[in-house]
Amino acid sequence: MRVTANSNDRKPRAPVFISAPLAALVEGIYRADTTIGRLRLKGNLGIGTFNDLDGEMVLLDGQVYCLRPHGNAEVIADDVRTPFALTTHFEGDTEDQFGRVEEAAFEHALLELVPSPNLMYAIRIDGRFDYVRARSVPKMMNYLPLAEIAKLQTVFEFRDVEGTIVGFYTPNFLAGVHLPGLHLHFITKDRTRGGHLLAAAPNSVSVKLQHAPSVELGLPMTLDFLTMERVRDMEADLDKVER
Amino acid sequence: MRVTANSNDRKPRAPVFISAPLAALVEGIYRADTTIGRLRLKGNLGIGTFNDLDGEMVLLDGQVYCLRPHGNAEVIADDVRTPFALTTHFEGDTEDQFGRVEEAAFEHALLELVPSPNLMYAIRIDGRFDYVRARSVPKMMNYLPLAEIAKLQTVFEFRDVEGTIVGFYTPNFLAGVHLPGLHLHFITKDRTRGGHLLAAAPNSVSVKLQHAPSVELGLPMTLDFLTMERVRDMEADLDKVER
Repeated sequence: MRVTANSNDRKPRAPVFISAPLAALVEGIYRADTTIGRLRLKGNLGIGTFNDLDGEMVLLDGQVYCLRPHGNAEVIADDVRTPFALTTHFEGDTEDQFGRVEEAAFEHALLELVPSPNLMYAIRIDGRFDYVRARSVPKMMNYLPLAEIAKLQTVFEFRDVEGTIVGFYTPNFLAGVHLPGLHLHFITKDRTRGGHLLAAAPNSVSVKLQHAPSVELGLPMTLDFLTMERVRDMEADLDKVER
Repeated sequence: MRVTANSNDRKPRAPVFISAPLAALVEGIYRADTTIGRLRLKGNLGIGTFNDLDGEMVLLDGQVYCLRPHGNAEVIADDVRTPFALTTHFEGDTEDQFGRVEEAAFEHALLELVPSPNLMYAIRIDGRFDYVRARSVPKMMNYLPLAEIAKLQTVFEFRDVEGTIVGFYTPNFLAGVHLPGLHLHFITKDRTRGGHLLAAAPNSVSVKLQHAPSVELGLPMTLDFLTMERVRDMEADLDKVER
């Protein structure tokens, strides 16, 4: 399955910038002051959401897309704000080729590529997929716990589709900050559709990974964040809504 | 008890730099590549330890001190390395005055000063104390879990002593990265003795706090860190050894 694995030069890589701890989103804090413009200064590849949970975010080649409830993509301007997003300046340390991988084996195949479970990695996967299942969410009221959106999300499928998966691998000691393990979003090659990735079966794809030597975590100075009380079971809630 | 509380100008504050997740120290990984020189570029106030757990660290006014098993302080050179330390460029957002505070009330009195439980804060407390209890640790073998040092630590007391407490308040969503709540070290005014703070009863002190708008977390590229498996119960272990 793995056709090539090349290590690039050893130049220092950019940190992963995380605009806010995911714990806040889990509590239903869906507004913060981080603009898309600021996010784009911190990286050219990333994922996240928008204020009021107004769609799933893909940041790819420096462009920010919002993936609407039925999967339609829209380019987003720099003055829009996000309560949670993460990004890095991506070039790729390694590149591997996958042929056909069954849906049930895909996550394991990706985790096999991660050299250490204790670093963060940015991931970019380009190519053709036999199958992709993704979801998005309708605009939400602030303070509705994230676990509630599992009931409101819309799920859609793609068959025999070209596109790009972007996202991150996060070590388990960052559990309050971001989802441990893989967190991936999908967008079609023509950048018109996509969503939060639920499952995929590659047909023929290239997988690029890049490690991060450090993480920069923003701590929002909003009243909602400053007065947040953590009452949710974060792990249980994320199991419902992100996996 | 609180005599004054002044807000400074609103200029942007430095991030808190954390050289590695505390999770690694809990697993007994006591060596990393971060030099004291690098740490001092990231801040002028901080706490931590040294490779092989060789004493407690106080970073104060840009100078790094090692507090030996019996509490004797030694100035440390830039080429020494640390497996875990945190620092920031400190000036102080607010300053409060405490008169006499009983040992049992001191932690609560400090937590009362923290404006939001969801930011990180650096703390500096200067003045006279009726009582200080501190501890340090002997040099350790790598891979002995941190919880084991509770048996090997030495505890010492100061009565009617002038000195400085430095440290941090950490929000609970960073539990894998640093000790949630207060983590403080003590050094005498003449900078000759000190340790990891276990208890204190101020007589007359000034308390300065500074919030951090972001956290920069280093992810060590050492073989020990890259291959770390998390097997310890971090919360239980930290209860034994840090509190």
